[in-house]
Amino acid sequence: MSSFSNKRKIFNDPIYGFVSIPYEIIFDLIEHPYFQRLRRIKQLGLTNLVYPGALHTRFHHAMGAMHLMDQAIEEIRSKGHIITDEEAKAVTIAILLHDIGHGPFSHALEHSIVNNVTHEYISQLLMNRLNNEFKGELTLAIKIFQDKYHKKFLHQLVSSQLDMDRLDYLKRDSFFTGVSEGVISSDRIIKMLNVANDQLAIEAKGIYSIEKFIIARRLMYWQVYLHKTVLSAENLLVNILKRAKELAQKKVKLFCTPALQTFLYKQYSKNDFKNTPHLLDTFAALDDNDITASIKVWTSHNDPILSTLCRQLVNRRLFTIEMQSISFKKSKINKLKKDIQKQYQLNNNEINYFVFSGTVSNDAYRGGINILYKDGTLKDIAKASDQLNIDVLTKTVKKYYLCYPKLLSHKS
Amino acid sequence: MSSFSNKRKIFNDPIYGFVSIPYEIIFDLIEHPYFQRLRRIKQLGLTNLVYPGALHTRFHHAMGAMHLMDQAIEEIRSKGHIITDEEAKAVTIAILLHDIGHGPFSHALEHSIVNNVTHEYISQLLMNRLNNEFKGELTLAIKIFQDKYHKKFLHQLVSSQLDMDRLDYLKRDSFFTGVSEGVISSDRIIKMLNVANDQLAIEAKGIYSIEKFIIARRLMYWQVYLHKTVLSAENLLVNILKRAKELAQKKVKLFCTPALQTFLYKQYSKNDFKNTPHLLDTFAALDDNDITASIKVWTSHNDPILSTLCRQLVNRRLFTIEMQSISFKKSKINKLKKDIQKQYQLNNNEINYFVFSGTVSNDAYRGGINILYKDGTLKDIAKASDQLNIDVLTKTVKKYYLCYPKLLSHKS
Amino acid sequence: MSSFSNKRKIFNDPIYGFVSIPYEIIFDLIEHPYFQRLRRIKQLGLTNLVYPGALHTRFHHAMGAMHLMDQAIEEIRSKGHIITDEEAKAVTIAILLHDIGHGPFSHALEHSIVNNVTHEYISQLLMNRLNNEFKGELTLAIKIFQDKYHKKFLHQLVSSQLDMDRLDYLKRDSFFTGVSEGVISSDRIIKMLNVANDQLAIEAKGIYSIEKFIIARRLMYWQVYLHKTVLSAENLLVNILKRAKELAQKKVKLFCTPALQTFLYKQYSKNDFKNTPHLLDTFAALDDNDITASIKVWTSHNDPILSTLCRQLVNRRLFTIEMQSISFKKSKINKLKKDIQKQYQLNNNEINYFVFSGTVSNDAYRGGINILYKDGTLKDIAKASDQLNIDVLTKTVKKYYLCYPKLLSHKS
Amino acid sequence: MSSFSNKRKIFNDPIYGFVSIPYEIIFDLIEHPYFQRLRRIKQLGLTNLVYPGALHTRFHHAMGAMHLMDQAIEEIRSKGHIITDEEAKAVTIAILLHDIGHGPFSHALEHSIVNNVTHEYISQLLMNRLNNEFKGELTLAIKIFQDKYHKKFLHQLVSSQLDMDRLDYLKRDSFFTGVSEGVISSDRIIKMLNVANDQLAIEAKGIYSIEKFIIARRLMYWQVYLHKTVLSAENLLVNILKRAKELAQKKVKLFCTPALQTFLYKQYSKNDFKNTPHLLDTFAALDDNDITASIKVWTSHNDPILSTLCRQLVNRRLFTIEMQSISFKKSKINKLKKDIQKQYQLNNNEINYFVFSGTVSNDAYRGGINILYKDGTLKDIAKASDQLNIDVLTKTVKKYYLCYPKLLSHKS
Repeated sequence: MSSFSNKRKIFNDPIYGFVSIPYEIIFDLIEHPYFQRLRRIKQLGLTNLVYPGALHTRFHHAMGAMHLMDQAIEEIRSKGHIITDEEAKAVTIAILLHDIGHGPFSHALEHSIVNNVTHEYISQLLMNRLNNEFKGELTLAIKIFQDKYHKKFLHQLVSSQLDMDRLDYLKRDSFFTGVSEGVISSDRIIKMLNVANDQLAIEAKGIYSIEKFIIARRLMYWQVYLHKTVLSAENLLVNILKRAKELAQKKVKLFCTPALQTFLYKQYSKNDFKNTPHLLDTFAALDDNDITASIKVWTSHNDPILSTLCRQLVNRRLFTIEMQSISFKKSKINKLKKDIQKQYQLNNNEINYFVFSGTVSNDAYRGGINILYKDGTLKDIAKASDQLNIDVLTKTVKKYYLCYPKLLSHKS
Repeated sequence: MSSFSNKRKIFNDPIYGFVSIPYEIIFDLIEHPYFQRLRRIKQLGLTNLVYPGALHTRFHHAMGAMHLMDQAIEEIRSKGHIITDEEAKAVTIAILLHDIGHGPFSHALEHSIVNNVTHEYISQLLMNRLNNEFKGELTLAIKIFQDKYHKKFLHQLVSSQLDMDRLDYLKRDSFFTGVSEGVISSDRIIKMLNVANDQLAIEAKGIYSIEKFIIARRLMYWQVYLHKTVLSAENLLVNILKRAKELAQKKVKLFCTPALQTFLYKQYSKNDFKNTPHLLDTFAALDDNDITASIKVWTSHNDPILSTLCRQLVNRRLFTIEMQSISFKKSKINKLKKDIQKQYQLNNNEINYFVFSGTVSNDAYRGGINILYKDGTLKDIAKASDQLNIDVLTKTVKKYYLCYPKLLSHKS
Repeated sequence: MSSFSNKRKIFNDPIYGFVSIPYEIIFDLIEHPYFQRLRRIKQLGLTNLVYPGALHTRFHHAMGAMHLMDQAIEEIRSKGHIITDEEAKAVTIAILLHDIGHGPFSHALEHSIVNNVTHEYISQLLMNRLNNEFKGELTLAIKIFQDKYHKKFLHQLVSSQLDMDRLDYLKRDSFFTGVSEGVISSDRIIKMLNVANDQLAIEAKGIYSIEKFIIARRLMYWQVYLHKTVLSAENLLVNILKRAKELAQKKVKLFCTPALQTFLYKQYSKNDFKNTPHLLDTFAALDDNDITASIKVWTSHNDPILSTLCRQLVNRRLFTIEMQSISFKKSKINKLKKDIQKQYQLNNNEINYFVFSGTVSNDAYRGGINILYKDGTLKDIAKASDQLNIDVLTKTVKKYYLCYPKLLSHKS
Repeated sequence: MSSFSNKRKIFNDPIYGFVSIPYEIIFDLIEHPYFQRLRRIKQLGLTNLVYPGALHTRFHHAMGAMHLMDQAIEEIRSKGHIITDEEAKAVTIAILLHDIGHGPFSHALEHSIVNNVTHEYISQLLMNRLNNEFKGELTLAIKIFQDKYHKKFLHQLVSSQLDMDRLDYLKRDSFFTGVSEGVISSDRIIKMLNVANDQLAIEAKGIYSIEKFIIARRLMYWQVYLHKTVLSAENLLVNILKRAKELAQKKVKLFCTPALQTFLYKQYSKNDFKNTPHLLDTFAALDDNDITASIKVWTSHNDPILSTLCRQLVNRRLFTIEMQSISFKKSKINKLKKDIQKQYQLNNNEINYFVFSGTVSNDAYRGGINILYKDGTLKDIAKASDQLNIDVLTKTVKKYYLCYPKLLSHKS
């Protein structure tokens, strides 16, 4: 429409330079409050406590993934595969909205106060809501997103081992953290994209780029996503929110933004979200600011457990964390609990907020990156590469962690 | 001290790579809650509404400026000038803490709810407080910061037309906004640093770098710091806070974090800050989250002025802004006010929250960058350069702006 | 054509990443020996003696300018201006071949042994020759190149104050020298390209980028193109070639590649080039290797003038150079000549190879960068900018230099 | 010495920015003609035929490796290990001169005309020669270079799986080729350097960086160093030089620079080099220009084999190359030879210049990168990493190639 040309169609991305918005509906979706809220949700949660540059938002990531999708469509079309304009628009919408349902500190939130409802579920609800508002214009996008469209490779561009989501976030996360070894060559990978048997594939000469992509992704796991100190901070946040919820259930008064209050003082199910339109909007009102602002106030709450935990997070006095490949001995944990319990004067329930263990694992490669040879055959990268060790690649690496406070008085 | 070697001494900066923390006291100051709070204050306030990457914090900037100071000290020493270890440490502390007193959205805050107390004043109070805590170890740093130390060039490294503050923020702001033309070559400028007659100076062969530095700085002014849309957003924020304060004075109830409440419901003077230790701590508890979280809640306040303004900001429906070199005609403004007043049903006071004008000006060059020639003479860059137009350079460019809402119903 | 798809269509550029070759004829022109020879001609001649990375070739530059042209065409078309496919192809050919006539160390060569025939003239001859080989397919390209086509803006893309040639070489030269301050934002400038009144123009919001472009270009002049040491080396090369020619005219035997021999032992006019097809091919056989290999051999020639000059260049014992804004006093030069003459035992002719002076000037801005305002008016950047000083910009800065050997025995 | 401060001590590197020359003797060695000649020898030979930016020289690489050595020394010292000033200077000289003996297109030359004398051997001769000139100042450097010094880790900084040579060349080669995936984080690796049991080691938290370093190195092997087209070009060059040598032995006259003539028309042994001082100087007079200039002349030699091969190289009409993991069938090769022989009218000797096969293999990891754990234990990366497949890593990957001309008339 003519008005589109008057709208701001270009934005600056420190990573890609100038990024153009390819369709008017994309512009309108970006302007929607549901999407604007992603400006206030950091992509990497508390990671900035370790890498101070990691403040980039889900908004910026979604825009970046949209940009890569635009390039991927052009590349695939240039190789003779048909993507209609309708399909191009739909797959671009799908990638733009793929993370729309994320709440603040998503992982922590889902492990504490909104624990029965995944962000994927909320994404679907929000997409449907938007589809209504946009009078059905998102129908095909949703179909592709849910992998119900017959051209499977379109879904793979949105969600697969080599989708535009991963390409953008690996690049973006390594850019903003400054972990330059995680940088991947999205340019080169996109230039090597092709389609065969309705599968997304990488041309054979791109095999080294894919090896490096997989190695870089693994490096980002251990160096950033599962960084010890980040894990310690995230678990501290989980415990803060759990404690707050416990207090709320006992009707203890806590400073809260109204949206946070809703989810702290009551428990909602998937059905509640589906059937109560208002609830979805309340969720959409939540962002990083609600959590952080409330936790800062809780640093002086009169529940000593809550206030201690909050001060640790706000002032970055994080728990010591140990990580190892085997589980921690019960006896070690019990000894530690006993010492801390005595020092901090905690009861048997409370100690679990201070000494806790768990496991993390990296996202093992589960197959699905196809290498396309000149004779038309497809081979999974795990078989095509002589370097990557398939047994290792496909084995999830699990690590055990144990967190506990430094030997401080809890009045610190 | 031995314990220092066990502390984390390196951090990642996407701009400089690995940055080392040079002194133990620097490490301890960084760990202090007053400094940690800078993690929650964005360097560029609302600029991310235009440049989505501009989320970097005053924390990160202070660390970067500290890093440049480290390099500058090494460079100047290598040219035979004496900087004792005590002085080096002090000047590094001074640059680390130069912005310690900034509140959230500093400019907007100082033009609305904390309007008699500058961030410079609060910086001094906080430095003195820290000096007490650190048992006088900051005394020399404060002396240098206040330009009371006899070696003047040390102060110039902290605060002058070519200080480490400017070098870092220009580089950092252009990096995170993606406005690559603002990038300056801090490396080269630092390599050209020298001292003559106790003045910081640039060696003559660095003259082109300085020309470019001045041009880049000016470019950043118009393209980022005084970007139309950013100005519109900042003025919207000022008006929101003013309206909130107005309502607070009328005892209207507003959702607030406790720290924000303190400053919204009462007015404090410089003396109050000086004489009430608790007040300084309350101020130090304020950050971006308090403001943003509160404004989100105010989007459904029953004062239509406040809620409308807040919705405009939160959902990024910013006011139209016009900018020009001459002032706007009274008649134009009045006509506009009348139209908007009618459409939005506003009284004569209320209209000023919706239609408002003002001026901005760039930070003109006021002299003080010395070029050092091989024969030892010093010349100001404005005279040394045949390209830069001294008349233009030293003239503040003033622009007039006029903001008003789009023609929407205010129930939008 | 079907065969095109089998040819290598992408190449790596450290600056732009992957660069695609847009037309089959472009591919075929690149493969032509006339174009392949540009692989052996450095863009910046002897500049690598100062900036060791500056080894990039005219081949690489031509490819880069072609890439920018491709982007510029897309941008201008997206703004509603018509560029037909034929025109697009032709303007791309024109930029690809704009430097085809350059010989090795072009400037030095034209001031010594091929001194009546400019590289522009040879470019035209080579383009015509190629046009014959390609059966007239270059006719429109040549028309645009010569500014004989009615759409003037197409020529301006190839040759004007803001052509793709300049955009690429400024960026490329600053990249490979490492003079990062010369970096220009070609991306942004191209995004701001537009056409008005058949003139290439920059949209008003790009004004700061243009200011910066002009400043960066000027900086590159003084820091790279007219760098003292580079000038000293280039003048040494001119003198070497002049001395060799002088000896050749006296029938003294000199080691030479056959192509160099042709031009050293005889003098050719423009008409010779035009009328003797073979001569053009001999010229096209010359490249940096002929000159450098020969000069290395001449380091042990029995003419002491020649061998001394050659050793100075090959072993990088360059002449001292003084530069200043006013001409050197005759008396100073004469005194210097007398001293050197005595020390090196030179006659009145020979001394001129060792002590010489001259002038250089930067490429002053001569108008022609148009700023396009929203109301459709065009203004030259010199008038549109309040920062750039028009008097200074349009004034050629002339500098005087004086070169002479260090006080060494010439047997060194 | 006082004069050092007047010498140019900084140079620009597009990769590292400003690089300082740390010692006066380093400056003097750089100025020496033996070192200056490295300015005329490309690091990657003919690789620029595939990656046009790959024109960087052995000079630039040696300077870069020197710069990394400077950083490594500082890092290791900062961790409490002693490196005396004498040792620091010596190890820096050793890295600066590690490649001093390389001739032009080193690999090709050693497989054709200078085939009994390795560049390592010539390096030693040149170092000894320099040591004499510098009155013994290089003695310790040579000792370290030859691994005869008792502190083994110093030699490892110069030559090991993780030496400053590799760190610089991987980074430099990926920078100038534009193969961005080969970029390694030399900064991070150097920050992780440590010494244990007199062995160079990487601290455990650097393990992912080392994994990535090994993967990047492997990627560079297949994507750059052993790139099919580069191999084809290098083998063409080998055959050209072999043919020229064959003709020379038959006393056929060939255009040559004097230095090339020396080695083309006679065969020299290691002893000849050792015992004939003049021969070493003649070798030092050879560089890329001698080879390239001569080959260009040979394109019109009346030996059709030589001229055809030379035209193929100069005009970049490279042989087709096939690569595979198993050896080519004799029958396939014979069939191909027969066809080409007929078409090009070649005898049984001559055909081997046109159809030839061989093998290449990557530089397998042979152990020696130690990971240092906090408890002081050292483990080889191959064992420390759970990702890298030790069997694969330590197995040399061998590939077979087969080259032959396109079906052209050899009069082309």
